[in-house]
Amino acid sequence: MAQKPEILHKEIIGRTQIFRVESVQLKYSNGEQRVYERLLSRHAAVLIVPIIDKEHILLIREYAVGSDNYELTFPKGLVEEHETLLQGAQRELQEECGYAAGNLTMLRELSLSPGYMTHKTSIVLAQDLYAAPLLGDEPEPIEVLTWPLADIDSLLARPDFSEGRSIAALYLALRHLKKNN
Amino acid sequence: MAQKPEILHKEIIGRTQIFRVESVQLKYSNGEQRVYERLLSRHAAVLIVPIIDKEHILLIREYAVGSDNYELTFPKGLVEEHETLLQGAQRELQEECGYAAGNLTMLRELSLSPGYMTHKTSIVLAQDLYAAPLLGDEPEPIEVLTWPLADIDSLLARPDFSEGRSIAALYLALRHLKKNN
Repeated sequence: MAQKPEILHKEIIGRTQIFRVESVQLKYSNGEQRVYERLLSRHAAVLIVPIIDKEHILLIREYAVGSDNYELTFPKGLVEEHETLLQGAQRELQEECGYAAGNLTMLRELSLSPGYMTHKTSIVLAQDLYAAPLLGDEPEPIEVLTWPLADIDSLLARPDFSEGRSIAALYLALRHLKKNN
Repeated sequence: MAQKPEILHKEIIGRTQIFRVESVQLKYSNGEQRVYERLLSRHAAVLIVPIIDKEHILLIREYAVGSDNYELTFPKGLVEEHETLLQGAQRELQEECGYAAGNLTMLRELSLSPGYMTHKTSIVLAQDLYAAPLLGDEPEPIEVLTWPLADIDSLLARPDFSEGRSIAALYLALRHLKKNN
């Protein structure tokens, strides 16, 4: 197993309102050198899988400017400075779905594209839900859908349920529920 | 269901060697306006799940500068101009694992983070493998691992098997194999 490359130099080379790009000069243990770019994340992110009852999950549907389409996904967002990961998950669940959870379980941390980005997302299972809406800053109301766990096939077949993180989170949640029920 | 926002204006506001950021001014159907930023992708990407025999998959282990760690993942890469998606998948499998596939199946397209990025990755199942190495442009040799399908639990428990896309691809591949065997 190779020894980790040494970072010889790093430097911010681009910055917009929400993106920062860093150039990183590396020396591998075999002497090879490379300069790569990576995108820096500024905040931890959470993605929540809400279990509304034993047979259904909640999904949201909102416009995504990256795909220029409405996307079916799980509630998610950035954790604020003063929040823990679970507090951020609770708030996002309230803002995007109108529910709070009596029971939040951290499933695991996922990376987005670790070759190019430092971003991490924590996947949280939300159970024992109760109505507790909070106003978010969305430009239009988010649509909340109840999806039957018996019909995962047609969910996975939908082109608008496209996000790798969401499909991974669904898989991790289903495995967790299966093991613990 | 709301009508899709209208794009009033878009403009490249940042550019490095590998990243391009676009600013997009939107008008929602309710009249609300927002300006968002998104990262533009330049090439289609493929991620390959290689089935080496009925009971094992292949994984690769390589250094990722985003996480500054060695990551366990599936072979993947960008499709070149002159290639189809499946030709790109075949080449990446040869360069990163040393195998070609007699049988390549497109499982589905995933998005990375559709709220912030236009990037798409096609997930390809590779079966009927045979040795056919191609030289890639890696700074150090990529480690190839054979992983038993009977031990998915410990794979999912590894912090270095962290990528949302990889976990989603594993799930999609296992479902496909289960349905077709």
